[in-house]
Amino acid sequence: MANPTAAMLVIGDEILSGRTRDANMYTLAGRLSAMGVDLREVRVVSDDRAAIVVAVNALRAAHDHVFTSGGIGPTHDDITADCIAEAFGVPIDVREDARQALIQNYPEGEAALTPARLRMARIPEGASLIDNPVSRAPGFTMENVHVMAGVPSVFNAMVESVLPTITGGAPLMSESVRIDRGESDVAEALGAIQARFPQVAIGSYPFQRDGRYGTNIVLRSADRAALDGATNEVRELTV
Amino acid sequence: MANPTAAMLVIGDEILSGRTRDANMYTLAGRLSAMGVDLREVRVVSDDRAAIVVAVNALRAAHDHVFTSGGIGPTHDDITADCIAEAFGVPIDVREDARQALIQNYPEGEAALTPARLRMARIPEGASLIDNPVSRAPGFTMENVHVMAGVPSVFNAMVESVLPTITGGAPLMSESVRIDRGESDVAEALGAIQARFPQVAIGSYPFQRDGRYGTNIVLRSADRAALDGATNEVRELTV
Repeated sequence: MANPTAAMLVIGDEILSGRTRDANMYTLAGRLSAMGVDLREVRVVSDDRAAIVVAVNALRAAHDHVFTSGGIGPTHDDITADCIAEAFGVPIDVREDARQALIQNYPEGEAALTPARLRMARIPEGASLIDNPVSRAPGFTMENVHVMAGVPSVFNAMVESVLPTITGGAPLMSESVRIDRGESDVAEALGAIQARFPQVAIGSYPFQRDGRYGTNIVLRSADRAALDGATNEVRELTV
Repeated sequence: MANPTAAMLVIGDEILSGRTRDANMYTLAGRLSAMGVDLREVRVVSDDRAAIVVAVNALRAAHDHVFTSGGIGPTHDDITADCIAEAFGVPIDVREDARQALIQNYPEGEAALTPARLRMARIPEGASLIDNPVSRAPGFTMENVHVMAGVPSVFNAMVESVLPTITGGAPLMSESVRIDRGESDVAEALGAIQARFPQVAIGSYPFQRDGRYGTNIVLRSADRAALDGATNEVRELTV
């Protein structure tokens, strides 16, 4: 059986203007190659509605899978989700599951969801969410198009969420734990947990908000029991 | 007068397989931006004749200039020159000026020109040569398509050979402002500034570094007064 084919669409003026060097193409190419998916084409387009819609429709018709990178943040130039809805001819609106995912990123909860942030919960009708264990705002899969963030750490995490769903491998499950302590305070304990649970990939993502340091811990495994065991140990670090 | 537009076509299986990280896109994007040429689109395709011909014809019809990278070496998979000839519907053969340029690269002269090396002197009819001061084997310009090597040092040298022949429009000026706050905190205010300064393209690029969230704001315009006005307003968001 022939390998599935894929295309990538990078969305972002910052790449075309030479300000930012794209990192996601190289990451995705390597991951797809390792999984036996043939990346056949990459396109980079600007934050331009018509250009994005045309590219999405051309690529999704020609390939088994399309991966997009960029343009799903909270600002006026983040138009990817709307363009995907337009390309598929479906409506788009704030969706409750995406809104709930987003809320988890803010300690103040509901009250943190300004109109700008709520933009990140707008999902085209019929799409399924892509988990974002790093910063919560989800990506989504619309038929064969996987829509992901441009920030490399988030893009990478989303790729790992999507890949098991398209290659028939054992799906990775993930848990995340927010710890209100700096990364260095928990590094040693985390290392020990990782050593006890080699079947679980444990990542830590430091953040600072309102003058406080914190760390999001993301655990991923195809082994439910090991994942639960490691997650419970990490939760003990929060107290 | 509007700036000229450009597209880039990167040709190479090694990029799509994840074996090599492309460097030329970033280089070309920065140089074109500095010259006032708008890079609107990049495509990466494999060493596949049909894919290259289709992409060349689509891009040269849509943009003032097309820059290609890769596939002009001596081996069997270097098919770019043939594909350009096919895209333009012109014959291709070894050309004397290209052959003379090539000979300069070999101390043993004429005798060094094996059939494989001679492939690098095959030029589509009607093209003009692009000087290659690094390794001599020339690139070429066919109408609005500039065909260059993929090896970064050679690509860069060829870009510098071509750029002076292209008339740049009014150079874009840019300013950037670093804000030590998350993107969603400034999204609304940025949208308002963008609405007041339609002549300025305002992009926001979130980052996370040393556990802190921040946002780089980049403003670009050919209009100095508008750029300064918008930049001043963005700077007020930093306090």
